[in-house]
Amino acid sequence: MRIVRALWQERPVYGVLEEERIKLLASFPEEGLDFTGEEVSFSQVKLLAPSSPSKIVALGLNYRDHARELGLPLPEEPLIFLKPPSAVIGPGEEIILPPESKRVDYEAELAIVIKRRARRVSPEEAFDYILGYTCFNDVTARDLQQKDGQWTRAKSFDTFAPFGPWIETGLDPSDLRVRSYLNGSLRQDSSTAELIFPVPEIVSFVSRVMTLEPGDLIATGTPPGIGPLAPGDGIEIEIEGVGRLKNYVRTSQEA
Amino acid sequence: MRIVRALWQERPVYGVLEEERIKLLASFPEEGLDFTGEEVSFSQVKLLAPSSPSKIVALGLNYRDHARELGLPLPEEPLIFLKPPSAVIGPGEEIILPPESKRVDYEAELAIVIKRRARRVSPEEAFDYILGYTCFNDVTARDLQQKDGQWTRAKSFDTFAPFGPWIETGLDPSDLRVRSYLNGSLRQDSSTAELIFPVPEIVSFVSRVMTLEPGDLIATGTPPGIGPLAPGDGIEIEIEGVGRLKNYVRTSQEA
Repeated sequence: MRIVRALWQERPVYGVLEEERIKLLASFPEEGLDFTGEEVSFSQVKLLAPSSPSKIVALGLNYRDHARELGLPLPEEPLIFLKPPSAVIGPGEEIILPPESKRVDYEAELAIVIKRRARRVSPEEAFDYILGYTCFNDVTARDLQQKDGQWTRAKSFDTFAPFGPWIETGLDPSDLRVRSYLNGSLRQDSSTAELIFPVPEIVSFVSRVMTLEPGDLIATGTPPGIGPLAPGDGIEIEIEGVGRLKNYVRTSQEA
Repeated sequence: MRIVRALWQERPVYGVLEEERIKLLASFPEEGLDFTGEEVSFSQVKLLAPSSPSKIVALGLNYRDHARELGLPLPEEPLIFLKPPSAVIGPGEEIILPPESKRVDYEAELAIVIKRRARRVSPEEAFDYILGYTCFNDVTARDLQQKDGQWTRAKSFDTFAPFGPWIETGLDPSDLRVRSYLNGSLRQDSSTAELIFPVPEIVSFVSRVMTLEPGDLIATGTPPGIGPLAPGDGIEIEIEGVGRLKNYVRTSQEA
């Protein structure tokens, strides 16, 4: 099932997408689907990022193939960082290159969308707290990441957290292809089978640090093949069983 | 003027505290004070953390005296990190020591509370976007901070972002004493005059990375004298002209 969030009659609504129709929901489907009875056509709405997260947690180095590429040992525990809600953009929106950076990279990632409040859940319980999965682009100012040591500034600029186009429920996340395409050309191509820490372990680990809220996002790390974005680029993140998230790139008009 | 947020008749309300009376506000005072006409007694309510931030930005090493203590060179730019909203607690609440850490420290900080949306504002404009100031305790699992390198996990546990007791408006933040007391004994004692990056520069810098929203918090860094917390401790953060934030410490009952 595909859960969408969309702008309809100037307000954000949740719904279930079935072919070209969206069946509207009364709210984020934290506890089952509460249909309003209204239906709108997909062509009548603008898709938004499919949830409104109170926080976005992301993982560093979490692909075996990426660790091999970088010649790094496998981490013993997940390495987490945060991206702010102010960085969120939806499908089709523009990633803005800030004047503070000379090198901004795309990073294709599978993101987990939290269904209900999760606090210190076990890996065995984790799937009860997951609504579904979406495509995430962990946009990163590589030069500032290296300069600061701490990754926050590099990963927090406005527009640096595109995700969508929807939340796909009922997927098995253990072996999904994760790909990125820059201007149509394949750049990253791996599988979540390469994840050092798989989905249930990630949810459990993060929930032992911080209480996760409905709609919160956990981005699970990126495979090899990351690279820079330039003004005019189109960047697509594809997750098998979900679909493709496409965003465009431009330079900031501001200083 | 003291802006409080409090639990009254089981709902969170904003108000202006005048001696023992709270004059209720219709909402967070983003654009002036919209009084409802209701007044409640201070003794009738439970104080909450005085805003509901969409994000908490904090600064690393930002006190000259602390940099001297650690023998570190002064940074060229502010070093920022994020704490999640799930870590917020209010005055009088308990800091919970998680089983994952053997060393959890207090850090006394002046926090800036954002008044209205701020995006790429200059240092000269910054005060137009500041509602006021409050006491902040940047609780940190020191051992995990060192282990991870990235600071997020160490600073993101539930209860690791106590702030309050209220927002003091109309203060000049350029030379305010910042102190902490552990079980009544003075542990940190410095002044915001020691800030490497002062308040207007901080707001400008952060707003060039991420759009700041009403109620968002920026914690400005901690002076020398940080130290560990133990179960049963009382920890107070005092900012001159604001007041004292007191919290208690206990061990997690969970594993």
